[in-house]
Amino acid sequence: MTGVVPATAADTTGAVPGGPPVPAVLAVDIGGTKLAAALVEPDGRLRGRAIRPTPAGDTETIFAALAAVVGEAMGGETVTAAGIGCAGPLDAVAGTVSPVNIPSWRGFPVRDRLAALLGGPPVTLANDAVAGAVAEYRHGAGRGSRAMLGMVVSTGVGGGLVLDGRVYDGPTGNAGHIGHTVVDLGGEPCPCGSRGCVETLTSGPAMVRWALGNGWTHPAPDGAALAADARAGDPVALAAFERACRGLAAGIASAAALCDLDRVVIGGGVSRSWDVLEPPLVRALRDYAGLAFVRRVTVVPSELGAEAGLLGAAALAHDPELV
Amino acid sequence: MTGVVPATAADTTGAVPGGPPVPAVLAVDIGGTKLAAALVEPDGRLRGRAIRPTPAGDTETIFAALAAVVGEAMGGETVTAAGIGCAGPLDAVAGTVSPVNIPSWRGFPVRDRLAALLGGPPVTLANDAVAGAVAEYRHGAGRGSRAMLGMVVSTGVGGGLVLDGRVYDGPTGNAGHIGHTVVDLGGEPCPCGSRGCVETLTSGPAMVRWALGNGWTHPAPDGAALAADARAGDPVALAAFERACRGLAAGIASAAALCDLDRVVIGGGVSRSWDVLEPPLVRALRDYAGLAFVRRVTVVPSELGAEAGLLGAAALAHDPELV
Repeated sequence: MTGVVPATAADTTGAVPGGPPVPAVLAVDIGGTKLAAALVEPDGRLRGRAIRPTPAGDTETIFAALAAVVGEAMGGETVTAAGIGCAGPLDAVAGTVSPVNIPSWRGFPVRDRLAALLGGPPVTLANDAVAGAVAEYRHGAGRGSRAMLGMVVSTGVGGGLVLDGRVYDGPTGNAGHIGHTVVDLGGEPCPCGSRGCVETLTSGPAMVRWALGNGWTHPAPDGAALAADARAGDPVALAAFERACRGLAAGIASAAALCDLDRVVIGGGVSRSWDVLEPPLVRALRDYAGLAFVRRVTVVPSELGAEAGLLGAAALAHDPELV
Repeated sequence: MTGVVPATAADTTGAVPGGPPVPAVLAVDIGGTKLAAALVEPDGRLRGRAIRPTPAGDTETIFAALAAVVGEAMGGETVTAAGIGCAGPLDAVAGTVSPVNIPSWRGFPVRDRLAALLGGPPVTLANDAVAGAVAEYRHGAGRGSRAMLGMVVSTGVGGGLVLDGRVYDGPTGNAGHIGHTVVDLGGEPCPCGSRGCVETLTSGPAMVRWALGNGWTHPAPDGAALAADARAGDPVALAAFERACRGLAAGIASAAALCDLDRVVIGGGVSRSWDVLEPPLVRALRDYAGLAFVRRVTVVPSELGAEAGLLGAAALAHDPELV
């Protein structure tokens, strides 16, 4: 695996010294909040990074926004391959996606639509959290793990598994969906159709919704504002993080019990408030991680931040056999 | 993989036609309720099957009972290899076990103790539910699955994963512990140190305890009696199954979301009341399996029954590379 980290001497083995330049790949990151794209060089440099909010609207409104982001990133160049990381769930065999937080995309054939837009290069499709997990395992906070869950805690809560040094994404490409594991039998209904899922407690919108419902007020209420108020000692904001962390810890402990994890890497918008997130998360893990092998799991923030999804999508475009 | 199913023409490829007899292996199955051992021929026949209740008592009391079961199964023969399936958790690297439901065994070196008892042959150690999952995947209700969880619902609730045709038991050998996934954040404390684990709702003793606490009476209250009364329409017994199945379904849906499962095979004492278990389990799965890829999971009873653990332990003794 080469070409997915910032260039260093050790990271350029994919280049052919003295030969023709190896073309960049296009990496695309599709989430409920933002659409991002970039060209990724074999040495891991990102070029032409473009980003815009995911619009509301029908199927084609969203694809038009994606096409615009892709066009901006491409800047008139061509690529020999592209990789998509997309919010789940998806059907990796059919190349279609049905992101919980993009309601108008249900069975949307994003892989073939992007291939057509680009003029036909091979396009690899993976869950966005799987792409992020690949990047963290190879080059970030997951290095050296033997059983890792990479999580994205943002508009939704997603995840990807790297077990025994290989991506495990399952028969349909959907393994790692920790956001839709049930931690509260009698909990709130979830848009996925279940109830009490981690995502109903721990996503940014879920935290904001709960805080607003419990007396928190803010002129521009969002996850960052909630974190700022928690940092300033607002009791409702603190309680919102406490509640979210109990859901998160129960989900992490469950995943560790099921997959014998040694590491969980948390990225996504909510993880950028790690100073506010970590103390209640550590406390809650003490409550829910019981067995010794579960207690050994270490939970750490992403090292690659917002670029993990793009770097992972590029890694998968370079080497589809990873999954 | 040979020698783990009842003899048929297709199952005897491990035998050497006309050559010296291939020695049997010793298979041992250690659970919170019973200790079992048998010699398993390469063609899968069990000989000398011995079984007795797991005694209460200190470390050596329990090992003495195990030694007695093993001695009865061996009948004076020798073996070239042995396989142990033991209730979890365990440390597969160190060869030690700490079964939740055998309180006096904590870090007990069962692998080396059995090897010493037998005079030194190689001994393979796996979680009992992992052993059962191997047997069901190879020869039972898990055949053809691409992502399977084999469960044991009995004194405890255990599990083993077979993903992409290989046992996945994780870095410490403990993957598959679905009984200690958290499905009820605010639920009862669990002996494992967490709370709201599937095992607090769905094990045989948990079901009986809940029923007794809610007005069920029986001269010999156990899981079989509870199932019989549910079958006869007793409302508290039916409610006990309903509650247990909600916990079980939430755990199964969570495991399916995380591991993209296509099949769950349920064995163990509770599963022998499949007629009583299935209707509320199917109803609860409708509530907790939301996403399409989660809803596709099929949940079926064990085909191999009580022999799965021994057959799987024998399979692992024949081929330790499986895990």
